[in-house]
Amino acid sequence: VSTAAVLVIGNEILSAKVVDENGPFLARELRALGVELRRIETVPDEMPLIIDALWRCLASAQWVFTSGGIGPTHDDVTIAAVAQAFGRRVVQDEATMRLLRARYGEKLNAARMRLAEVPEGARVEFHQGYLFPVISLDNVTILPGVPSLLREGFSRIRERFRVAPIFSRALYFNLGEGVLAEHLDATVARFPTVGIGSYPRFDEADHRVKVTFDGRDQTAVQAALEFLRARLPVEAIVRED
Amino acid sequence: VSTAAVLVIGNEILSAKVVDENGPFLARELRALGVELRRIETVPDEMPLIIDALWRCLASAQWVFTSGGIGPTHDDVTIAAVAQAFGRRVVQDEATMRLLRARYGEKLNAARMRLAEVPEGARVEFHQGYLFPVISLDNVTILPGVPSLLREGFSRIRERFRVAPIFSRALYFNLGEGVLAEHLDATVARFPTVGIGSYPRFDEADHRVKVTFDGRDQTAVQAALEFLRARLPVEAIVRED
Repeated sequence: VSTAAVLVIGNEILSAKVVDENGPFLARELRALGVELRRIETVPDEMPLIIDALWRCLASAQWVFTSGGIGPTHDDVTIAAVAQAFGRRVVQDEATMRLLRARYGEKLNAARMRLAEVPEGARVEFHQGYLFPVISLDNVTILPGVPSLLREGFSRIRERFRVAPIFSRALYFNLGEGVLAEHLDATVARFPTVGIGSYPRFDEADHRVKVTFDGRDQTAVQAALEFLRARLPVEAIVRED
Repeated sequence: VSTAAVLVIGNEILSAKVVDENGPFLARELRALGVELRRIETVPDEMPLIIDALWRCLASAQWVFTSGGIGPTHDDVTIAAVAQAFGRRVVQDEATMRLLRARYGEKLNAARMRLAEVPEGARVEFHQGYLFPVISLDNVTILPGVPSLLREGFSRIRERFRVAPIFSRALYFNLGEGVLAEHLDATVARFPTVGIGSYPRFDEADHRVKVTFDGRDQTAVQAALEFLRARLPVEAIVRED
């Protein structure tokens, strides 16, 4: 089973200056790739908190993606935090330095040189047509926080994470959870490999509860749906997908 | 200093069936109340992960808000997790039971009775005109995951969290971070009580970098802004707020 954790680094999200787009984007992408996302943590631009979260993400998932804290300013501490989490030094990547020298010439100051800093032993991948490299260390991929750049970076490496798909079905009921609960319990007990979720609505939607069935075994997912359906009156089901 | 942590509980968010609205909503509300949000964790509907996250949230902030996992079905485990995190039993709240009996009469089944379950010693607050109570235990407030219900619940208690406001200003530059970095470093060193953030843009916006100044001391926030402004040419600044 392939699993992932996402670590969003940024005071701007915690202080509500910006609504995070990267967590939801990575959740959608990972899901489409068959990777199970196990946690999202959003922490401030503070080394100890980033390192602590990195360790936890590494302990709880196979792949870790960080978002944000990359760049030349004082609040960009992700590279240093990843290095420290792995007990590595921060070094200058030579390929990135050559590009920076070509681009900035005499204007290559200390701040711009920080763009070449990576944890020692990191993989630094340049892709044709893109300005910035994707940096990774072991199973941690370090992505920029600007949503357009994060999307671009992830798109260049996404296929390496693809595994067998997760199948998902849903039934929509005009009954409440108070009536459905015992039938859900029976379905959960009978199909332990299927993830079953129950989502009530309290608005003008056409249904009161959506029940979802998720799993890597398509036959089991379908059987769980049929099992629950058979326990309830036909007219209780509004629709399915 | 008043601080908070938000714990979002829900497989549906990690599996990208739903984009979380509650984390961003609470971030905005807490900010408006002067409360500093220190972390947001999003975890699955699994007791051990919820308990572990609760302990961490409690250790890192004064107030903890949970979102989701409340209700009568198998995937609603937040009440049990909060109880276990505090070493308490789960008990039936009498006031809630009376309401449930009045509402459901003979149809009050085991699933619906779960709506009355609370950690022992919890505060269960009914407010005029609302159907469900707000449940809290010590400094943990347990909110429902349905966004309209979470907002409603939070609105009834929000004023009790209000403290002195956090002031925020911003300068917008047509220069890049590579040029600004040394001036930001000088400003950060001079104004240690002001939180300074630097946010580059790579799109068609009117500016290339937004620099933010945050703090509880309005004079220091303004002085930090003036200090940075004075170090750069007038024409480098596009606007301010």
